[in-house]
Amino acid sequence: MTAYDQLLAELREIAALASAQALLAWDQETMMPPAAAAGRAEQLALLAGLIHQRRTCERFAELLAACEADPELAQDDEATANLRELRRDHERLTRLPSTLVREFSETTSLALEAWKDARERSDFAAFAPWLQKVRDLTRAKAECYGAPAGGTLYDALLDEYEPGARSAELERVFSELRARLVPLIARVMDAPNPPADVLAGLRVPVAAQEALGRRVLSAIGFDLNAGRLDVSTHPFCEGLAPGDTRLTTRYREDAAFDALSSTLHEMGHGLYEQGLPKAERRGQPLAEAASLGIHESQSRLWENLVGRSHAFWEWALPIAQQVCGASLAHLTPGAVYRAVNRVQPNLIRVDSDEATYNLHVMLRFDLERALLAGELPVAELPGAWSERVGADLGLAVPDDRRGALQDIHWAMGAVGYFPTYTLGNLYAAQLWEAVARALPDVQAQLRAGEFAPLLGWLRENVHRHGRRYPAAELCRRATGEPLSPEPLLRYLEAKLTAVYAL
Amino acid sequence: MTAYDQLLAELREIAALASAQALLAWDQETMMPPAAAAGRAEQLALLAGLIHQRRTCERFAELLAACEADPELAQDDEATANLRELRRDHERLTRLPSTLVREFSETTSLALEAWKDARERSDFAAFAPWLQKVRDLTRAKAECYGAPAGGTLYDALLDEYEPGARSAELERVFSELRARLVPLIARVMDAPNPPADVLAGLRVPVAAQEALGRRVLSAIGFDLNAGRLDVSTHPFCEGLAPGDTRLTTRYREDAAFDALSSTLHEMGHGLYEQGLPKAERRGQPLAEAASLGIHESQSRLWENLVGRSHAFWEWALPIAQQVCGASLAHLTPGAVYRAVNRVQPNLIRVDSDEATYNLHVMLRFDLERALLAGELPVAELPGAWSERVGADLGLAVPDDRRGALQDIHWAMGAVGYFPTYTLGNLYAAQLWEAVARALPDVQAQLRAGEFAPLLGWLRENVHRHGRRYPAAELCRRATGEPLSPEPLLRYLEAKLTAVYAL
Repeated sequence: MTAYDQLLAELREIAALASAQALLAWDQETMMPPAAAAGRAEQLALLAGLIHQRRTCERFAELLAACEADPELAQDDEATANLRELRRDHERLTRLPSTLVREFSETTSLALEAWKDARERSDFAAFAPWLQKVRDLTRAKAECYGAPAGGTLYDALLDEYEPGARSAELERVFSELRARLVPLIARVMDAPNPPADVLAGLRVPVAAQEALGRRVLSAIGFDLNAGRLDVSTHPFCEGLAPGDTRLTTRYREDAAFDALSSTLHEMGHGLYEQGLPKAERRGQPLAEAASLGIHESQSRLWENLVGRSHAFWEWALPIAQQVCGASLAHLTPGAVYRAVNRVQPNLIRVDSDEATYNLHVMLRFDLERALLAGELPVAELPGAWSERVGADLGLAVPDDRRGALQDIHWAMGAVGYFPTYTLGNLYAAQLWEAVARALPDVQAQLRAGEFAPLLGWLRENVHRHGRRYPAAELCRRATGEPLSPEPLLRYLEAKLTAVYAL
Repeated sequence: MTAYDQLLAELREIAALASAQALLAWDQETMMPPAAAAGRAEQLALLAGLIHQRRTCERFAELLAACEADPELAQDDEATANLRELRRDHERLTRLPSTLVREFSETTSLALEAWKDARERSDFAAFAPWLQKVRDLTRAKAECYGAPAGGTLYDALLDEYEPGARSAELERVFSELRARLVPLIARVMDAPNPPADVLAGLRVPVAAQEALGRRVLSAIGFDLNAGRLDVSTHPFCEGLAPGDTRLTTRYREDAAFDALSSTLHEMGHGLYEQGLPKAERRGQPLAEAASLGIHESQSRLWENLVGRSHAFWEWALPIAQQVCGASLAHLTPGAVYRAVNRVQPNLIRVDSDEATYNLHVMLRFDLERALLAGELPVAELPGAWSERVGADLGLAVPDDRRGALQDIHWAMGAVGYFPTYTLGNLYAAQLWEAVARALPDVQAQLRAGEFAPLLGWLRENVHRHGRRYPAAELCRRATGEPLSPEPLLRYLEAKLTAVYAL
């Protein structure tokens, strides 16, 4: 066996362990009986430790170095991409001293509990000492990684979620987005004839919502023979092994199409997972997602660009009416289209509409950088939050629960994660313009429930590449352009102008 | 940390890995999408390898030896029991050369596929070469283990499932059982007024059967907050971690109480799992089941001694009528009691009644010993099978599918497993007599749905001990007597005399 063969065999084994870990995590959110929680934490920690050990041990490092020194592999595009990404991962994993890894893990576990409790009681002061600790350890982590070439210390953290991204570039793109989004939202809020919320007050039984979701999944091309759809408190997608991609959603009888929207979102993640070459390249970077931003682009594309389009509802509404019965009989595709595209600034990020959502993300991006840099003391976070929500969304923050305590990310030590949400929206809109150029009939196809051309295009231009190209390059190759705020702005401006008759 | 502390910490980690393995196995039978099968086999094999490695590595052996040499631990009953059992496991795990382990695992994987195929086509000749290979490798395994003190080569295999059991002793007990069981069954078959099958033709919706099962589980004391009930093709119980015991059953609309019976059986296993001190003694032998025979005694006790008693149906039938509705309205506890206690020799072991089931087990016990000893050539198995079924059950074997190909055990290389089924029945009846002595009101309690005294007795006398005592000693301590066929015979004779008016 060559060193490369040995390395691939080792990656395969690590992937099998990671699958066990993923199943433990999926089960915890969907199936696990409550009394099993303590034991589950122990199982997950043990597997995380075993995986870390195998990826950082001497033998792994030697194999990787031997492959990098092999001139034949340097001729092979795919091996080169794998080795580049493995080196990147290895550097990140080995730069943190194990004392810091342990301290970080223990502190964030406790901080998470403290956050849950503080959020429940809407008491930021109770969480502040924990946030301070997590912030300090996160800063220490960033210092261990070191600022990447042409980047800041924050970029060392961002790089974990969005490899190669730089905050300076994001700042530029986000501020262009913001410059036109804020006035657009203001015009929308002043529009004299907002669309009616025709979905308010409707009740659709959970069983019917579930049947509708499954029908839509199958029609679009999510392979339920190689996946599942279950229920969890927070919807997620877990691509846990080849042939095993699991989605969750949640149902509320009084929210007719919310579950469908969340199912479409997770299905977008799931289609990406099913489109990665996992069986052939088990455990290799070439079988992994390019970045969180690209992953989110797939979920947002199906949730919003498809799932909030007029064409989609022309196809989906008759099916929904057939599956869900009389309570939907009076609806028209146009009315549903307008209702699901209503804009309404909301204190809560995850309840926000397509347009205002991005302002939430930018707020967090700016505040987390200020926290990390030490420009914003932890104690002043609620004040800064309120001020920004007032300025951006025109809302007053009544309590910490609906303010700085609403998200789990910082308690987990996930700093640099938030911008990937808006990156997902930007990539989705930019990919969508490329789709429209490549498939001029895409709207007619959606109307007819023909999703194969669209899914085929995404498979060909995004899914199959895995981590072969960094996200920015993948975007350029798929769309012909570097990342730009223009497509998202064009999309929102066109849609809201129509829906709100601006 | 002392060597013993280190050993216990290592056992805890191994247990966490074993829990991940158990979840992968449970998921495979209940939740896994079909396309995930190949990847799942790889994950399971990897975890099995990791666990084996940790239990057989030099460090483990050194820790174990250091503990055995520690005079202080020798004063400690519990440590002594743990060390005795760990030594036993270690001997078994290290006596097989890894080449044999691999060959055995590969051959039985292929033999299993060949068996499925041959059973489907009812073609013993197609399976015979595989059975020969498995038999030869099983014999090689037995030779590596070596015959235990006072035992045969077969006992070396039996010892894996029923530690300390010897075939000579089983032969004695089984032949006493057989000597009275065969004439009893003959009298029953000749009885002029067999009970009516009042359950034939009834249809109960699956949802109602499931609701009934859950209601009964909760009433008896199976903690669904620390467990689950799901559906699988073959019902099983997986005690996968502290606070996490999962049962499965299967439903057929036209078999009113079959699912309840199978749920009671698995619940018996599950109550044992929930009663083991798993949280306090994570990974230690003291937190594990004493033997398969003892485990089966718990399932059979609840399935048969409780679940086929008149008292149980006095309590359960009104609940079933309430949950399952009109189709059961005409039934009486007495009629149901008689119907679920009908005796009918059946070609298939798993479809057999309480009395004839044991004849199936003895048949396999005798034939597998003859196969292993080389006294019965593989090619002659179907003939020997037919002859014995004719003699014992009065039935003609029409094809291999309903003959020597019906069980999975030999294809898996599980030789020595079958006798534990009848051991389970024997222990169950013997425990039941002890219960009746300790709890004179137990029948009235069952009638009133008061299960706590019975469950408490089992917890106290069986569950909490884990592997502290060998099965035979556990039986003696719990019942005051060594294993005997008398209680099972008394139980069957009394019941069938009443039900069949002999």
